[in-house]
Amino acid sequence: MSLLLRNQLESIISLTDQEFEYILTHFTIKRVKKKSLLLQVGQQNVSKFFVIKGVLKSYYIDKNDKEHILQFAEPDWWITDYKAFFNETEATIYVESITDCELLSITKKDLEKLAKEFHKMEHFFRVKSNAGYVAAQERIITMLNLTVIERFEYFLKMYPNFIKKIPKYHIASYIGVSREMLSRMAKNVTNHTE
Amino acid sequence: MSLLLRNQLESIISLTDQEFEYILTHFTIKRVKKKSLLLQVGQQNVSKFFVIKGVLKSYYIDKNDKEHILQFAEPDWWITDYKAFFNETEATIYVESITDCELLSITKKDLEKLAKEFHKMEHFFRVKSNAGYVAAQERIITMLNLTVIERFEYFLKMYPNFIKKIPKYHIASYIGVSREMLSRMAKNVTNHTE
Repeated sequence: MSLLLRNQLESIISLTDQEFEYILTHFTIKRVKKKSLLLQVGQQNVSKFFVIKGVLKSYYIDKNDKEHILQFAEPDWWITDYKAFFNETEATIYVESITDCELLSITKKDLEKLAKEFHKMEHFFRVKSNAGYVAAQERIITMLNLTVIERFEYFLKMYPNFIKKIPKYHIASYIGVSREMLSRMAKNVTNHTE
Repeated sequence: MSLLLRNQLESIISLTDQEFEYILTHFTIKRVKKKSLLLQVGQQNVSKFFVIKGVLKSYYIDKNDKEHILQFAEPDWWITDYKAFFNETEATIYVESITDCELLSITKKDLEKLAKEFHKMEHFFRVKSNAGYVAAQERIITMLNLTVIERFEYFLKMYPNFIKKIPKYHIASYIGVSREMLSRMAKNVTNHTE
């Protein structure tokens, strides 16, 4: 179960069994049903989640009650409100399970403790932060520049397994189109690629 | 001149004079006139720039030759093509000086060397990466959700000194509105805040 985390750590740094066991003691296992809120607006002490099983989304609700999806996460991905987590402020977005999920949760304090105790864990978290930064930068370019069709193709590239895993209206919210528009696009693209 | 860099480093970590002098040997000073390209699409071996003097922008040119501004940078800020820098791939965006600039430039290899040699430099770069990631996430929320007026107000909050420093059409490109629209907004907001 924690093998997924170990594999991700060891894709960047090397660890002894003892080190990994010690690192793992800083995480808490969380099992939730689908449509559970892991994080809600206004919450303090925001943790970061590593996905073992299931699919989640982070989203923002605007003043017209419209949901805008920021990120999806599947096994081997991390998800949280990064701003609230890093700045130790209250959450301004929601994190919710789309399916039943199994997660490893870590607090900011424990993440900083690991980064301080092990230079290599500091390195690991820096590499992951860089990757998150790059993905966010990519998404900005996508939003600035691409047509809805291209944004859909970007979504398929970014989350190749998702189209079959999650309800289409989540994808419509991520891309910023209506469900009807998405259904038409999905048909065209799927015909095209299959 | 390098005091700005030292102050930024020491806002996060502590350094002896000897350590700072050593760190500084990994940077190269660059002085460029306004409208100089520091980075262009297709370029290999992308460096990262710390701004000592002047203002720069990073931007993307779409297939209709339209420029979309991703980021501005002023003294005490960093700027590069983060994707190309971190992944050691060729640049897909431009970085250009808006005014005459003085910069400290560091290669990926030298940044990684410093991060490896000093745990505290690894920590410094992780903290900066987190901050960049958070800012990018904020910008995505802005783009998903806000009206052009709110995007302009976000710009003013993010870059409070810029409205007087750089030509208005740069700001219009960042927000994604026409110059005429921006002039009208700037008038309203300035009347409102002064």
